[in-house]
Amino acid sequence: MKIPDAILDFFLKSEHFFIATHISPDGDALGSSLALSLALESLGKKTIVYDKDPVPEFYRFLPGSEKFTNSLESFASGRQISNLVLLDCNDLERAGLEKITPSRSVVIDHHETEKEFGDIKWIEPQAAATGLMVFHIIKKLGAEITKDIAVNLYSAIAMDTGTFRYSNTTPPVLRVAAELVEAGADPSYISENLYETWSENRFRLLLKFLNSLEISNGVTIAKITLDMFRETGALVSDTENFVGFSRILKSAKISVLFREIENNYYKVSLRSKGKQINVARVAEMFGGGGHRNAAGYKIRSDFKTAKEKLLEALSASSEKHT
Amino acid sequence: MKIPDAILDFFLKSEHFFIATHISPDGDALGSSLALSLALESLGKKTIVYDKDPVPEFYRFLPGSEKFTNSLESFASGRQISNLVLLDCNDLERAGLEKITPSRSVVIDHHETEKEFGDIKWIEPQAAATGLMVFHIIKKLGAEITKDIAVNLYSAIAMDTGTFRYSNTTPPVLRVAAELVEAGADPSYISENLYETWSENRFRLLLKFLNSLEISNGVTIAKITLDMFRETGALVSDTENFVGFSRILKSAKISVLFREIENNYYKVSLRSKGKQINVARVAEMFGGGGHRNAAGYKIRSDFKTAKEKLLEALSASSEKHT
Repeated sequence: MKIPDAILDFFLKSEHFFIATHISPDGDALGSSLALSLALESLGKKTIVYDKDPVPEFYRFLPGSEKFTNSLESFASGRQISNLVLLDCNDLERAGLEKITPSRSVVIDHHETEKEFGDIKWIEPQAAATGLMVFHIIKKLGAEITKDIAVNLYSAIAMDTGTFRYSNTTPPVLRVAAELVEAGADPSYISENLYETWSENRFRLLLKFLNSLEISNGVTIAKITLDMFRETGALVSDTENFVGFSRILKSAKISVLFREIENNYYKVSLRSKGKQINVARVAEMFGGGGHRNAAGYKIRSDFKTAKEKLLEALSASSEKHT
Repeated sequence: MKIPDAILDFFLKSEHFFIATHISPDGDALGSSLALSLALESLGKKTIVYDKDPVPEFYRFLPGSEKFTNSLESFASGRQISNLVLLDCNDLERAGLEKITPSRSVVIDHHETEKEFGDIKWIEPQAAATGLMVFHIIKKLGAEITKDIAVNLYSAIAMDTGTFRYSNTTPPVLRVAAELVEAGADPSYISENLYETWSENRFRLLLKFLNSLEISNGVTIAKITLDMFRETGALVSDTENFVGFSRILKSAKISVLFREIENNYYKVSLRSKGKQINVARVAEMFGGGGHRNAAGYKIRSDFKTAKEKLLEALSASSEKHT
């Protein structure tokens, strides 16, 4: 992994940094931002860590998570930000910062992009996580990988590799993980915090979701209604990863979740296993989008009609493929 | 990890080996046995790989899994086995081989033992998996880590570390995993095979199990009845890991599964998180046993009484601790 010299120069020569990451932050966004902030501060520099959205409850174990602010007031008269570091995303809109005009900006990300934004850019789509790129920056800057930094980076990499289950789990990823454990990251403590902190409300919502699940012809369809939220007290954010649950079924090639937003209005999430069906193409037919294996759209319709339309689209898409 | 010289001598100087592992084989038992067999055969030696129980359906992706036999007939007139290698267990009974008398035996295991069995023993309780010990043996013997061997060893290590989520996930474990990926093990292919090959019957049984789950005071109790097996067509082996499911709940310190063996006769499985309650001590109160965080026992009683007795024991055990 070759870090552009301009990136290292930027960090070495400046003293103040405004580190921002994307809205609805995940483990990689939060962990890589905090790790970079802690490392720069250990070198005597000043940082602000920004996310428009609050840190989700179950990520608050990340050391330094209380540093996150969603206020622009405190920094350089609000609008004029001098050294913006955008992590795990590559444009201002994704970070909810469309109203600011940074005088200098650096983008560090592992998502593909065709965006123009950024004075200095380091985009590495091959990197499993932005946390991995930040790891290499920290080492190059000569900062120590402290225990707090290690926990943040390990969590970042864990979340983006499904804790070493996805195809982006390469030998270098595993070796960096080993180094982070040596530096003090505790795999079982981190896994417990990432995966074993469900509320009972969330658990009860999962159960209702699973009970609604129908399986036929390799497609699983389940729904979450407004009533279910009311009955369980769970939140919309609690539904994260629900749609992927039925992956455990050998026969499930496509998983679908219909989440009721309001009466006769649904958010539809699609996941597929393998390469047979590109669910982004299916979502596009309904005005949505996404990736080959994870996509979504919204539809105004009753559940029954929405389901029938989707099954037709899936069947057409499947025929096209064969 | 220091391999005893006698172990290496044994493998280098003998030509025929009878490799056996424990009944109800798991990923570590199967993967380490197959890897050792494949490596020894690549050195021109002959091996038989034995398990009393058949290889479970979802482990049949392990390269060479068809080599497993449960017949003693084919080998040395049935009873007299010359070079027995016992893997991932440390006595004949655990392998269902109590009736044989091997002329020479080697034990390679990472479970604690006070057993006397074995002419040459290498017991390494610190090793995350027997597969890790076999990895080092294969390297020392000078055999190549082929892709087939790598898939077996990676699967062995993955299963015994919860794919790198348990506390036995050490830096050396992650580095060996990196080496195995380099040798051809594909983390996503292996994870899909290990975790995403559920039958619909098994899924339906999980749902019934979850629907029966009660949560109170940090204890989750769920049951699986004979009726549930009948209604879903699922097998006893399908209940593997069910008891651990409620770990995802932050409030669940102890998870209990009552599985009905016959009318008024239950197999009780206990799991605990953290160090507060040693469930082995609780299981011992009912004539069972196990480890600090995973234990079990059998009880003749109706469900209601069995549950009350257990809750009393847990409460007593918890008071003792505080």
